[in-house]
Amino acid sequence: MKDRFDLYYWPEIQGRGEFPRLVLEGAEAPYRDVARLPASDGGGAEAMMRMMDQADRPPFAPPFLVHGAVTLSQAAPISAYCGESLGLAPTAEADRLFARAVAQTTADFVGEAHDTHHPVGTSLYYEEQMDEALRRAREFRHQRMTKFLAWYERVAKVNPARSGWLVGERMTYADLGLFQVVEGLRHAFPRRMARIEANVPAAIEIHDRVAAHPPIARYLASPRRIPFNESGIFRAYPELDGA
Amino acid sequence: MKDRFDLYYWPEIQGRGEFPRLVLEGAEAPYRDVARLPASDGGGAEAMMRMMDQADRPPFAPPFLVHGAVTLSQAAPISAYCGESLGLAPTAEADRLFARAVAQTTADFVGEAHDTHHPVGTSLYYEEQMDEALRRAREFRHQRMTKFLAWYERVAKVNPARSGWLVGERMTYADLGLFQVVEGLRHAFPRRMARIEANVPAAIEIHDRVAAHPPIARYLASPRRIPFNESGIFRAYPELDGA
Repeated sequence: MKDRFDLYYWPEIQGRGEFPRLVLEGAEAPYRDVARLPASDGGGAEAMMRMMDQADRPPFAPPFLVHGAVTLSQAAPISAYCGESLGLAPTAEADRLFARAVAQTTADFVGEAHDTHHPVGTSLYYEEQMDEALRRAREFRHQRMTKFLAWYERVAKVNPARSGWLVGERMTYADLGLFQVVEGLRHAFPRRMARIEANVPAAIEIHDRVAAHPPIARYLASPRRIPFNESGIFRAYPELDGA
Repeated sequence: MKDRFDLYYWPEIQGRGEFPRLVLEGAEAPYRDVARLPASDGGGAEAMMRMMDQADRPPFAPPFLVHGAVTLSQAAPISAYCGESLGLAPTAEADRLFARAVAQTTADFVGEAHDTHHPVGTSLYYEEQMDEALRRAREFRHQRMTKFLAWYERVAKVNPARSGWLVGERMTYADLGLFQVVEGLRHAFPRRMARIEANVPAAIEIHDRVAAHPPIARYLASPRRIPFNESGIFRAYPELDGA
């Protein structure tokens, strides 16, 4: 049925799937988290892989969303599609397009956070690329984290609507993405975040307002929110953190 | 004026700007390549940086596009916007959305190609991260190139329209992106490409059909096409290549 959203992502981690999941939760949309269902209900990672193998519009990788005739992959385009379908997107055309670019920039930032522990490649274990990880994480903390966070801060401050949100008058999927990035960075780089959060008060204020949005607050307190863990994108490896 | 597209990107390289540029060229759209104009005409990299600094919907980085009230960054969303505005996109909704995911997957692939020479960070020279680059490039050649190229091959083969293109009945911006990736990989990894191209004939056929599209063929023969060079994303560093 067209109304229900079927989200597919690895069942054990937040990862990139958490970005569209937060949009579905924030909008209180009817959705199934397919790979987390029991195999007897068509769930599990194997069902997800089968779906990928059989699709005639094949995702390159999870997450992907099935909604009616639509099969859509890539965290940012899925988040945009859900946000635009469910009222968590701006309405003016220029803002709608800008929100898509903000979400994609968030996805890039997340990719760089991932590469701090996998700078050589995902086919190797972290332990096989620790020397490279130490160097890349230092660059990430001191160059990239500051640059990306300062950019969100500026986006919030120059938003012509002066709403305190990133884009337009209301909370959108772009803000949900910033929330998740701040959560992830606090998990993976707590010392660095403690040092620099005061420089980006408008971005942190958005994080806090998202966390207080009732459907999101209920979701975060539920078992549907998978805890951060060291198989995901944001990993608490103390040797990669530093003030 | 709304009709004219203003593309902003670093004037000396193809880089990520080449993806939307190919869409504008392929559609024979009226556009300005602003940073490549003389400063006396409002061009140059400084004018681009000023535009970024003053925007109230700020790009995180070039490329970005200004079109009427729209300021849009990120190569894949810009390509999608141009393609959808200019008739180089699918028309059916499911195909339109799939094309956006294909273009974003291409952008991810390009990001990984970039990181073969900058695996630690962009604030350091290549020469400062060569050891890491040798390892990452090997992973890229043997794991990622094969996986991404095989995915394009499959997308072309299972396209329900059986058109030989990636999405729908006609050439779209998704195909232009694949063309550019093949060009870039041939420049940066000629030995590896010589070895594996025969495995992905449908993808290479798309490359060849795009190259023969008259507006693209004229563009490629023009001075508007910046030659590949070792400041761009795809760099011919022989030590990073191998069969």
